[in-house]
Amino acid sequence: MASKHWSELAAAKRAQLSNSIPQEWVLRNLPPKETLTVIDFPEKSGLLTEREIEITHSEVSALLDKLAKGVWSAVEVTTAFGKRAVNCLTELFIDRALKRAAELDEHLKTTGTVVGPLHGLPVSLKDQLSIKGIESTIGYTSYIGKYATKSAVLVDILEAAGAVLYVKTNVPQTLMWGETYNHIFRRTLNPYNRALTPGGSSGGEGALIALRGSPLGVGSDIAGSVRVPAGFNNLYGLRPSQGRVPYAGCVNTLEGQDSVLSVLGPLSSSLSGVKVFLQAVLDQKPWLKDPLVVRKPWNEEEYRLVEHGEGKRMCFAVMWHDEIVLPHPPVVRALEETKKALVAAGHKVIDWKPLKHGELNTALWTIFTTGGAQDFEAALNEFQEPLISEMYPIDGGDVDSITTGIPGHRAMPPGVSAYEAWQVQKRRRDLRQEYLEYWNATVGLTGTGRPVDAIIAPVAHCAPPPHGWNRPPVYSMIWNALDYTALAMPTGLFVDPALDPKKSPHEFLNDADKANYELYDPEVFKGAPIAIQLIGRTLEEEAVLGMAEVVGDALKRHLNLGRS
Amino acid sequence: MASKHWSELAAAKRAQLSNSIPQEWVLRNLPPKETLTVIDFPEKSGLLTEREIEITHSEVSALLDKLAKGVWSAVEVTTAFGKRAVNCLTELFIDRALKRAAELDEHLKTTGTVVGPLHGLPVSLKDQLSIKGIESTIGYTSYIGKYATKSAVLVDILEAAGAVLYVKTNVPQTLMWGETYNHIFRRTLNPYNRALTPGGSSGGEGALIALRGSPLGVGSDIAGSVRVPAGFNNLYGLRPSQGRVPYAGCVNTLEGQDSVLSVLGPLSSSLSGVKVFLQAVLDQKPWLKDPLVVRKPWNEEEYRLVEHGEGKRMCFAVMWHDEIVLPHPPVVRALEETKKALVAAGHKVIDWKPLKHGELNTALWTIFTTGGAQDFEAALNEFQEPLISEMYPIDGGDVDSITTGIPGHRAMPPGVSAYEAWQVQKRRRDLRQEYLEYWNATVGLTGTGRPVDAIIAPVAHCAPPPHGWNRPPVYSMIWNALDYTALAMPTGLFVDPALDPKKSPHEFLNDADKANYELYDPEVFKGAPIAIQLIGRTLEEEAVLGMAEVVGDALKRHLNLGRS
Repeated sequence: MASKHWSELAAAKRAQLSNSIPQEWVLRNLPPKETLTVIDFPEKSGLLTEREIEITHSEVSALLDKLAKGVWSAVEVTTAFGKRAVNCLTELFIDRALKRAAELDEHLKTTGTVVGPLHGLPVSLKDQLSIKGIESTIGYTSYIGKYATKSAVLVDILEAAGAVLYVKTNVPQTLMWGETYNHIFRRTLNPYNRALTPGGSSGGEGALIALRGSPLGVGSDIAGSVRVPAGFNNLYGLRPSQGRVPYAGCVNTLEGQDSVLSVLGPLSSSLSGVKVFLQAVLDQKPWLKDPLVVRKPWNEEEYRLVEHGEGKRMCFAVMWHDEIVLPHPPVVRALEETKKALVAAGHKVIDWKPLKHGELNTALWTIFTTGGAQDFEAALNEFQEPLISEMYPIDGGDVDSITTGIPGHRAMPPGVSAYEAWQVQKRRRDLRQEYLEYWNATVGLTGTGRPVDAIIAPVAHCAPPPHGWNRPPVYSMIWNALDYTALAMPTGLFVDPALDPKKSPHEFLNDADKANYELYDPEVFKGAPIAIQLIGRTLEEEAVLGMAEVVGDALKRHLNLGRS
Repeated sequence: MASKHWSELAAAKRAQLSNSIPQEWVLRNLPPKETLTVIDFPEKSGLLTEREIEITHSEVSALLDKLAKGVWSAVEVTTAFGKRAVNCLTELFIDRALKRAAELDEHLKTTGTVVGPLHGLPVSLKDQLSIKGIESTIGYTSYIGKYATKSAVLVDILEAAGAVLYVKTNVPQTLMWGETYNHIFRRTLNPYNRALTPGGSSGGEGALIALRGSPLGVGSDIAGSVRVPAGFNNLYGLRPSQGRVPYAGCVNTLEGQDSVLSVLGPLSSSLSGVKVFLQAVLDQKPWLKDPLVVRKPWNEEEYRLVEHGEGKRMCFAVMWHDEIVLPHPPVVRALEETKKALVAAGHKVIDWKPLKHGELNTALWTIFTTGGAQDFEAALNEFQEPLISEMYPIDGGDVDSITTGIPGHRAMPPGVSAYEAWQVQKRRRDLRQEYLEYWNATVGLTGTGRPVDAIIAPVAHCAPPPHGWNRPPVYSMIWNALDYTALAMPTGLFVDPALDPKKSPHEFLNDADKANYELYDPEVFKGAPIAIQLIGRTLEEEAVLGMAEVVGDALKRHLNLGRS
């Protein structure tokens, strides 16, 4: 039986992480609490050399190129990113990483060839990804001390591709929150403004990559957990369809719930990072390593948009809101600028009217809760660790304080019978069918002879909000409900009180809509990055990446013209 | 509320079906009950012309060729198969079919082109496949009178490909039996021997196609329901992986159970029929019509066995038994002959040792039963129709009698909680992972540099047994548990008391094994067809068809040599 209190175990684990940071990398000049924006702190800390700053600011494709040519060694690249990796971690194994990096450098020196498409690239991992010999606590004190006996399939694939694994990153307890707080590692903050949330549940990844402590990371997404932290930290984040990226061997919650699967996806500061990741994974035929992976190799034709008019004169549909929660003014501005950019680039842009999003989102949440409470209890009971039932700090000021509830209280209703779960799952299936036919029917509106090529929508109803306020995740989970490919992407825009004033109240759609309206204060959100979401069909990852390039290029050209 | 007794409704529905048979096609000279083999009865009945006999004996590829060239019209082909379609039906709509056939003939005459790859081909459908305006009773009296308001996606696809739909075929009540009996249409028999079962749940398809009342049919398979009736009726029957063939819009039981999905698959007397079906379906991009279909077009490279040494010197593994039920002597003989044939053709054949089949099969059955009892009750309650709890006739002689139980009695345990279901589903997922690694590990045994190319196994533990004796379906459902591509194929062998004597008792593995041993009597099974099963990996339909050609050719050559 449990002999220790959960809080002792959590403190010991924190100390262990702290001790794993090399002494010479420990920062003594941390910014004071009042300094909210820390996005450029690593550069200014004096810890990094000029060369290390250059390395950590390079795009994934540039890094890989320099690594392959031996301009930069894997050891120095790993060291540079390792030094920057702070605050968002659950596990740091820099010795193991530097050993691996040295092996890769030796291989390149001896053979003149790279071991794979990710040769020497440091890749950060959400805590769920098991690495043999390392813990995956995923924010549960009862998981401390459970060392993985086997690596996750994706970990093996990344290592075979030449990646250097060096850190695992923080998550919220239960993984079912769009923010990042647990009793072991506490709260992860948004480096653009520490009073704001980095999102979640892959919030450690989001913050780490934004700080350039990692060039490429892996998160998981069952309701937005890759896309929300990507969007909130000015990154690209892909939610692939179920069965595209191998999940086998990861630690998870709600396991055995086979209806709506969590998926793994990449986060990166560049689109090239996302693409390189997906290609590297698919090149290794993951369907021969994980039975849930679909036998579909990288399809270059789909990436070149052969089914989307070769990327010329496409038709996008903008979903301005989902009829549940109206997004804040900065989010609407981002959509408006994207529309202008695409029209200027010769594409057509029409409106996307949501179809039964409320019912679909409710079905999804109901599926999660059919056995969710018992699932959480099973992990919390050993040490009577309290379930975290809210994500906001108690006094609104201390970023590390939080309310905790009683196990099973508030966050999840009690479970239902398997037969009752089947009825919800059946309804969701029928709604998916209806949505597909609805999308197909847009063929009459596009002028391209095809249905809408992709949907453009908010990632969330707001830019990153203050801690505790990121709910409900209706704009992200809807695409999980439909199993569509969805990519969060930065727009290059940030909240600006001059451009994004608060509007006068509208007729509120419901309590959540009212709360969200009241939440907006331009001064609070000032400087926060604003993202959009690009949504394609199921298993259309290649085409979504191809279209994201089109959208990104159009936005860049449009915004630069506006400035000149 | 229900005002009629379920048996009255069933009788009325039978009368309706009977009346839908054109008077001039009604046979007056039915064979007496003592005549067990009726496989050649249609020819001898005098109902068919010489030309109609020739048509109905043609392979699918030959039929399509003659239809495309206008040698035979769609109307005469439909008429020929329509005349033969007796005994196994639930719905006959020959007027609609002949109208459609005439339109197709007109199209060919006018334009000189076919409307699609199935131009003019009559295709029979298991009762589950909804056709607008027609009932899908699937053996429940409470479903009588529910006319479909929309056709299933696959029905639309088949019609767009040029198929002529003309009949729907019989199933067992609940669909969860490997035989074919319900209160409405009663029992379907095996035309090779009417004392034997045609299998199930697609038993109507199996019997109909064996009688050449259809050249190609569609069944469904969640535990063997395509492969068992295919194997028991000397046909090819494919169980594709989940998500290959669109299921949307079909009527089903256990709906909303998302963990192990029933799949649709073709049955045909020729392998060309199976291939033509799959190609025709995939050519229409079914992933744009059913959200559960995988975006994977027909892959000609995979069919040409590029990943399997171009089909030369492959390595097959024979699973002689599953460590649960030892198959009867004729089944073992079929495996032995297949092995000899493959070795003679230059392939290597090793043994396949089953891995935890008992645990996997139990997991699967447990998943079905988590909400199964409530599901059946919901369909039976309206008219207090009894649940059929056994498939054997009461007195062992009257093929149309059967025992019926109380609703909810015997066939299904009560349901469990969603959380308990998750635990079983999680265990199954882990076993799938284990099985994949187990298959991969055969790379050291094959001598090809690849893991085993395909597994060869029994379709069932016996050739078609007497009514009521086809259980448990362990040899078929194991591949549903693993979601592997599995094809039932005829061997050209039939039970022969001289070659297949009963053996002396072995040490029985369990009660089911003992019961199966005791069941075997060479005289009872005499003349029954013996099938084998060819199993490839998930979503490897093309390669399985390619390898089936190799196996079929090898068997044909081997058996002909043996006879010469």
